[in-house]
Amino acid sequence: MKIGILTSGGDCPGINATIRGVCKTAINHYGIEVYGIHNGFRGLLDDDITPLTENSLTGLLNMGGTILGTSREKPFKRRMSPASEDKPAMMLNTIRNRELDCIVCIGGNGTQKTAAKLMESGVNVVSIPKTIDNDVWGTDISFGFDSAVSIATEAIDRLHSTASSHQRVMVIEVMGHKAGWIALHSGMAGGGDIILLPEIPYDIHRIGDTIINRLKKGKPYSIVVVAEGIQTMEGKKAAQYIAEEIAYETGFETRETVLGYIQRGGSPTAFDRNLATRMGGHATELIAQGLFGRMIALKGDRIDSVPLGEVAGKLKLVTPDHDLILQGRRMGVCFG
Amino acid sequence: MKIGILTSGGDCPGINATIRGVCKTAINHYGIEVYGIHNGFRGLLDDDITPLTENSLTGLLNMGGTILGTSREKPFKRRMSPASEDKPAMMLNTIRNRELDCIVCIGGNGTQKTAAKLMESGVNVVSIPKTIDNDVWGTDISFGFDSAVSIATEAIDRLHSTASSHQRVMVIEVMGHKAGWIALHSGMAGGGDIILLPEIPYDIHRIGDTIINRLKKGKPYSIVVVAEGIQTMEGKKAAQYIAEEIAYETGFETRETVLGYIQRGGSPTAFDRNLATRMGGHATELIAQGLFGRMIALKGDRIDSVPLGEVAGKLKLVTPDHDLILQGRRMGVCFG
Amino acid sequence: MKIGILTSGGDCPGINATIRGVCKTAINHYGIEVYGIHNGFRGLLDDDITPLTENSLTGLLNMGGTILGTSREKPFKRRMSPASEDKPAMMLNTIRNRELDCIVCIGGNGTQKTAAKLMESGVNVVSIPKTIDNDVWGTDISFGFDSAVSIATEAIDRLHSTASSHQRVMVIEVMGHKAGWIALHSGMAGGGDIILLPEIPYDIHRIGDTIINRLKKGKPYSIVVVAEGIQTMEGKKAAQYIAEEIAYETGFETRETVLGYIQRGGSPTAFDRNLATRMGGHATELIAQGLFGRMIALKGDRIDSVPLGEVAGKLKLVTPDHDLILQGRRMGVCFG
Amino acid sequence: MKIGILTSGGDCPGINATIRGVCKTAINHYGIEVYGIHNGFRGLLDDDITPLTENSLTGLLNMGGTILGTSREKPFKRRMSPASEDKPAMMLNTIRNRELDCIVCIGGNGTQKTAAKLMESGVNVVSIPKTIDNDVWGTDISFGFDSAVSIATEAIDRLHSTASSHQRVMVIEVMGHKAGWIALHSGMAGGGDIILLPEIPYDIHRIGDTIINRLKKGKPYSIVVVAEGIQTMEGKKAAQYIAEEIAYETGFETRETVLGYIQRGGSPTAFDRNLATRMGGHATELIAQGLFGRMIALKGDRIDSVPLGEVAGKLKLVTPDHDLILQGRRMGVCFG
Repeated sequence: MKIGILTSGGDCPGINATIRGVCKTAINHYGIEVYGIHNGFRGLLDDDITPLTENSLTGLLNMGGTILGTSREKPFKRRMSPASEDKPAMMLNTIRNRELDCIVCIGGNGTQKTAAKLMESGVNVVSIPKTIDNDVWGTDISFGFDSAVSIATEAIDRLHSTASSHQRVMVIEVMGHKAGWIALHSGMAGGGDIILLPEIPYDIHRIGDTIINRLKKGKPYSIVVVAEGIQTMEGKKAAQYIAEEIAYETGFETRETVLGYIQRGGSPTAFDRNLATRMGGHATELIAQGLFGRMIALKGDRIDSVPLGEVAGKLKLVTPDHDLILQGRRMGVCFG
Repeated sequence: MKIGILTSGGDCPGINATIRGVCKTAINHYGIEVYGIHNGFRGLLDDDITPLTENSLTGLLNMGGTILGTSREKPFKRRMSPASEDKPAMMLNTIRNRELDCIVCIGGNGTQKTAAKLMESGVNVVSIPKTIDNDVWGTDISFGFDSAVSIATEAIDRLHSTASSHQRVMVIEVMGHKAGWIALHSGMAGGGDIILLPEIPYDIHRIGDTIINRLKKGKPYSIVVVAEGIQTMEGKKAAQYIAEEIAYETGFETRETVLGYIQRGGSPTAFDRNLATRMGGHATELIAQGLFGRMIALKGDRIDSVPLGEVAGKLKLVTPDHDLILQGRRMGVCFG
Repeated sequence: MKIGILTSGGDCPGINATIRGVCKTAINHYGIEVYGIHNGFRGLLDDDITPLTENSLTGLLNMGGTILGTSREKPFKRRMSPASEDKPAMMLNTIRNRELDCIVCIGGNGTQKTAAKLMESGVNVVSIPKTIDNDVWGTDISFGFDSAVSIATEAIDRLHSTASSHQRVMVIEVMGHKAGWIALHSGMAGGGDIILLPEIPYDIHRIGDTIINRLKKGKPYSIVVVAEGIQTMEGKKAAQYIAEEIAYETGFETRETVLGYIQRGGSPTAFDRNLATRMGGHATELIAQGLFGRMIALKGDRIDSVPLGEVAGKLKLVTPDHDLILQGRRMGVCFG
Repeated sequence: MKIGILTSGGDCPGINATIRGVCKTAINHYGIEVYGIHNGFRGLLDDDITPLTENSLTGLLNMGGTILGTSREKPFKRRMSPASEDKPAMMLNTIRNRELDCIVCIGGNGTQKTAAKLMESGVNVVSIPKTIDNDVWGTDISFGFDSAVSIATEAIDRLHSTASSHQRVMVIEVMGHKAGWIALHSGMAGGGDIILLPEIPYDIHRIGDTIINRLKKGKPYSIVVVAEGIQTMEGKKAAQYIAEEIAYETGFETRETVLGYIQRGGSPTAFDRNLATRMGGHATELIAQGLFGRMIALKGDRIDSVPLGEVAGKLKLVTPDHDLILQGRRMGVCFG
């Protein structure tokens, strides 16, 4: 048996651990051959594929990024294109020529969609969710999320000393276009006083009141954690907009920080390494049992899988009645 | 309404975040007064109790240890003692005089037992599990565990370079007297080749074979992660014993490291801070609803509670068919 | 004997360790009383001053920020102001009334200037340099710098995986308005391929060539570290400008990160803690010996001091023949 | 021109960065060919040598350990050995056959001795000091030291919470057989109350008094940092012995931690990376200029070199009048 493995979409801590989990289980336990497909689905178009051996897995467990490379190639996206560029056919051709019995697709929401289409084209597919944003539907948690939250929390920790030493309002923008999971978890873990998520509309007056109330209680400084995807005006970026509005509302000196790409990089946390390893191993389990068309998922403390077709196109968003939000509100955190 | 809060048993990252969660929810949301009882149950014996205000909670979220102090005092342990030392009566007296409507007990297995006895004496009790060992029965995870696993994993990461540079077998001993959770999780996250838990008997020949097989595959070094509670001979400590046995079996140079107390200390991970905050807040929720005699528990991704009477005296151990063990075995990890 | 201590200008890791060093040496060894002046020189204007005892020093060694608070108050700056606002006189008044025999001023270049003016007004002053930028003249290194370099280096480490996984050029902007010390040291420690400092003019074509040459050598990604103070056009911020120019020059996909305030915050490195402790202690030594009007300085591995009057108004900049730049160039790093 | 490079003795953070510094400067700037000699001097005996190219240097800057491997082989040590085992001749033979114009030796005190002997045998040698212990004579600081101090300081930080929560005396043993540099620097940076070095005799009564005095001041806990090489009795290890003696002297509960090998491993600090890079680059500079027989050294902030013959056999120890010790004493730290 021969399988191919590819990584697609934004990089995220734990991808290499997943690759290692898939491959070590396949090679060591089932005698399945594994081929690495380079740069996401583009590697299927270009037939850019090399075998993975146990030796190529050394050092992967705690290495950031993806040794396979990644791209945002979406081969099923319909375009006005010349006949020679029938990308789905090119991929099928590669898979047939290489005699690959299954393709393991590691990626976020976009990748899940493409994987579902590949499956509909008759290819055996098992997919694994991967996103620091934690917004893939069907799994409780995706690997990469805990690492991103850890980095963001450490950054927020660092801002506290500046906030209190200078009596300022520090605004920090973390990742999350549509889903506010990172802002919610790092905001709560970092002791944010105000936490703004794309899912919850905010009222700048209420934010100002929170800051003024803190001042009255002898705390002339505040930490504001915002997801990049919150609504702003005039095309302004989240942190800048909120910092300006707060300065206008309260008269406080404000400073903004956009955490950016360092949330995606570097070595995964122990939690993410184990989640990635387990998800990778479970993918190989399914393949060995001949179960295809499924996305690996964490359910409670158990690794399971869901039909790939059910996942595609759905987003897992924070709901306003999420336990951590309710808990935060009771403790005096303002969610907008 | 007035409640008391105490921390008992070994310290662990996240206790202060829990205290903060209990208190902020109580003071800010329910107007409940909270009193800090010092040094565990000893504070109830000595009436060593002070009020906690919102100001006393500043900086607690990411601070290690416990601001309330802790002790291993077990007031219900029967002893040959003079009549003047009726500890249960002394505690009840303090609680009555202070007019405390409920005692929140934060602690590990020993504390849960004492809390259950206190409840049987007619006191309203809500308890919160706390242990880096993750062995409290009834909750999926206890706070402190993720922090301990992170520290242990980082330490194992560091040993890899010495192991491969010197072609040695490095043995690292992590905490876990009866339960091997830390060894299992840090061993897998740290890429341990051999992982030994108190729950799984090991065969030193099989361990030797694993090391020799790695040598044959061109890897003349190995990482061995052992829980402190594994069986040894002649009263030797776990790491020393295993290092000596491996040296004898394989002829390899071995070195041992005992990680020790640094696993308990320092700032909790983001995961533990949020778990601690949620558990603390939920304890106050139960109290506000008049629900006593329960231990807070994590079930899947939900904070819940279990009857305190069901918890006491039980340990949550690793079972040999745990998913992470099965996954590890398929990847070639030796569990003894 | 009584002394006052104040912290002024931007916060920086190690200030609290310095305060601790000054005070423990004063109180414990010399029996000198120490008074904390709040919010920089503003505390002298407002007579906002409290005694510091040994107990108030607990936990300061590794705490970020400054427990005394800080401000950018420049009391000697001439203004069109009403007679009632003679700030120098107000300060002298406070110092006289409080019977302070010496003021210890901890701060950056602006603070050194103010401290020199205070000295000229007849006040005994000892100052201590403090800046993450490392641009205070007269000392080899200032505390805060090693911490800032560590944080920036860790951030650059994290970008490598994204750069190589996505085949991108990652541009990271670190602090340094006039001096490029952080960019130089973190750029070299983080393996930057291109490092741009305010002190060295750059040629965007040469930068483009470096990136193209790396591509030709099989490295289709690069890391660019820029100080915030480099020359740009149209008022653009450093990272954004360079990222856009590189994209235009090379056709590479570029991404930018502005590290911002997290470089100033959090616990100081071991190096900075010891440097801060030694500088603080040496300040007290000078005071005990009646030596005033000096700024503490690191010279080689020795703590020494320089006349405060010589420091004020000078900046310590990176010179193009700095050893680390020459070394970098020989290794193929492009400095513009 | 062709040079060989080897790493010998215990591994230490920064070796790989040094190799990278030597090689990148040689290959990129001078067109010198570099050959990696495996497992220290043993590689010269076994002719275990491979060329190093720029591609083999990727990822070395922040990687712990040594990609060349190391050993404790001392080829000049005189032994009763058969004629066939003339190790010096074997090495010279390899160097001649390989046409190596110079050998770069990276190592600690033992390596410097062997390098000096190799030089006396007529081989061109340039050596680079490497030791976490910082005890190589002739250089202000060796790379690896700052990393070891950082790890030890972080560990000490973690013990504070346990010490204060449990009212215990925590004893931590750090590396340093003959030299107490790590204990001194991490002890001061970690806020140790008692710091014991091999160079300074201690009096257990004075240690007990320090702990009792802290108790009287309301601090019923203490942190004790000991170097592994301090004098003990009955062959006991440092931490255990001191913990037992303190318990006997004071009645305090004591706990010990032996930090061990994690001090040597993992990624070097930014400081060590730059020191290693500069030392490596300077070694190549000397070679390019035809200057041999020298050990690279840090002098103040400048990279320089000293005659190898002057270094061998000398140790750089802590002197009792070291600035950090005097400073510590004035702040109330007990050095025995």
